[in-house]
Amino acid sequence: MTFRIAVIPGDGVGPEIFFESKKILGRLIENYNLDLELIEVEAGDSALAKYGEALPKQTLKTIEKSDMILKGPVGETAMDVVVKLRQMYEMYANIRPAKSLPGVQTKYGEVDVLIVRENTEDLYKGMEYQLTEDVAVGMKVITYKASRRIAEVALEMAQRRKKKVTCVHKSNVMRVTDGLFAKACRSVLLGKVQYNEMYVDAAAANLVKDPNMFDVIVTTNMYGDILSDEAAQIAGSLGLAPSANIGDNKSLFEPVHGAAFDIAGKGVVNPTAFLLSVSMMLDRMYQLSDQEKYRLASNALTEAIYNVYREGKSLTKDVGGSVGLKEMIDAIYSKLT
Amino acid sequence: MTFRIAVIPGDGVGPEIFFESKKILGRLIENYNLDLELIEVEAGDSALAKYGEALPKQTLKTIEKSDMILKGPVGETAMDVVVKLRQMYEMYANIRPAKSLPGVQTKYGEVDVLIVRENTEDLYKGMEYQLTEDVAVGMKVITYKASRRIAEVALEMAQRRKKKVTCVHKSNVMRVTDGLFAKACRSVLLGKVQYNEMYVDAAAANLVKDPNMFDVIVTTNMYGDILSDEAAQIAGSLGLAPSANIGDNKSLFEPVHGAAFDIAGKGVVNPTAFLLSVSMMLDRMYQLSDQEKYRLASNALTEAIYNVYREGKSLTKDVGGSVGLKEMIDAIYSKLT
Ligand SMILES: CC(C)[C@H](C(=O)O)[C@@H](O)C(=O)O
Ligand SMILES: CC(C)[C@H](C(=O)O)[C@@H](O)C(=O)O
Repeated sequence: MTFRIAVIPGDGVGPEIFFESKKILGRLIENYNLDLELIEVEAGDSALAKYGEALPKQTLKTIEKSDMILKGPVGETAMDVVVKLRQMYEMYANIRPAKSLPGVQTKYGEVDVLIVRENTEDLYKGMEYQLTEDVAVGMKVITYKASRRIAEVALEMAQRRKKKVTCVHKSNVMRVTDGLFAKACRSVLLGKVQYNEMYVDAAAANLVKDPNMFDVIVTTNMYGDILSDEAAQIAGSLGLAPSANIGDNKSLFEPVHGAAFDIAGKGVVNPTAFLLSVSMMLDRMYQLSDQEKYRLASNALTEAIYNVYREGKSLTKDVGGSVGLKEMIDAIYSKLT
Repeated sequence: MTFRIAVIPGDGVGPEIFFESKKILGRLIENYNLDLELIEVEAGDSALAKYGEALPKQTLKTIEKSDMILKGPVGETAMDVVVKLRQMYEMYANIRPAKSLPGVQTKYGEVDVLIVRENTEDLYKGMEYQLTEDVAVGMKVITYKASRRIAEVALEMAQRRKKKVTCVHKSNVMRVTDGLFAKACRSVLLGKVQYNEMYVDAAAANLVKDPNMFDVIVTTNMYGDILSDEAAQIAGSLGLAPSANIGDNKSLFEPVHGAAFDIAGKGVVNPTAFLLSVSMMLDRMYQLSDQEKYRLASNALTEAIYNVYREGKSLTKDVGGSVGLKEMIDAIYSKLT
């Protein structure tokens, strides 16, 4: 089986990260004999400017025939690209590790929290209406089915980790919607792992107080958006966080950070978040194919990145180093086993 | 003019905090010749148990005739008490200072951010429906009028501070509702103060990265709930944060922390958040009456609290001290000028 991957280099720093990362991908394919086919497609601000659409038909055609999407950061049109793809292909689980990297100073020591964010409903459905000039309304849609489905992903993740899940909601105020979400989580998780529930405001404070009180957090789309950015920053930097959007038929992997237009084209961007997203993609291929080589390739990439951090000599400026993108990529490349 | 204050001692640690704080209130009334009338009323879990209602009619009658409400923490029924009162009396501005106290160690040095949270609409309207067994929906209601009104409060606050306001929303996803909120904020704030906008996920990360990049944050009800708890913890501790709920006809002052049943009745709770809320109440009386004595009393209370922190000898355990509630209150009392 060949995995077909549609690659969206994206806007801003996206293209240069992907361009430099190709040699790492090539090396992994070679070393581990991976069956990958990469097809570059256009999407984002630049696609909008060129074709009048952030997600051009040509791109969608290729994505339609692909198993996975590897996506760089996208600018102002991020919503039209990523939220649309998540819903279009029901990539229902947004997996966001907030894990500190070796040698990157944090105020919290070593942090390792995994946020499992529901990725298809809530206010993100985009059902909004301007009722009068004065009044607007948006629909927070929560279903029992999608809530159970995301709870099941959290269960699976927790079983690979410390077997502890915190369900985050605000059912004291949103009794019906968040109440339904909590009920679904309880039905899946209670008795299977160490399970507790926490209101989202308390969770936002507790992440600051003691992030490692959490192992896996499962939550709705909107809270997950907020808490995962907060947690990534607590673990070191939003700029280093990878993510996976998992569906039954398609998955999308992307760095959490944005297009960073201010440093684009200068060859100084840190490729960590993108490369860790590649590692998550390889791990997903392992889950789907059960072929060891994908797991080994995923580990090799993560380890190479970690080793560059451990060594501390070939890091970009944002993490206290002094080299550029290309040098950091070369260092990671040289550590690949 | 006499200010009538309905006092809800609340649940858990609430009653003991209020009981011990009475001598401080009495001393301020005497020292500054304040025209205050305090009337104790019941509300919360204990009221629910006793009368079958978290907000008994008797209590509402007294509140109806009061200018202000001074509220301790309330347990499981918090939503039925505080969210109900906020909406019933259109206390539209929730003012939440995240300000570190002298000598309280934080990971961020000295923090001073003010969160101005819209307090009457958004998902907090409680318009939620279970459409089918599987599907629930909640209404995020945003009006231009209420958004402008809260922006005006932020403007007023910023003018007393560093003249800088960040409007926090998520209009890349919630284009209609958050778009309307942002438009209203722009119409009030642009050109009047240093103004910028930030998506809520970025704001949650930036508070962790560098809280003092913010001065005043203005935001909707739901985001404000989350960000204010996060910010309070960043400034030192959620347990120390006061808040004000301001309306044109009535205002309510309350600590942000909960009822803390685990330490209730032990005389060890820290009264800071409650007393700083009293100070915010006195400041509000100054705004309404234009009588200097209320401003002086408010400052005297805040300064007395700060001096006890500066001295560091009479602090409760949660802030590194070793005394109980009563001793801390006595210390603050002795510093009142
Ligand atoms: C760009 C934006 C629409 C997106 C989201 O809100 O989901 C981003 O913040 C994310 O978290 O992936
Ligand atoms: C108790 C709860 C309903 C309340 C809220 O969500 O507003 C509280 O968290 C607060 O922030 O005052």
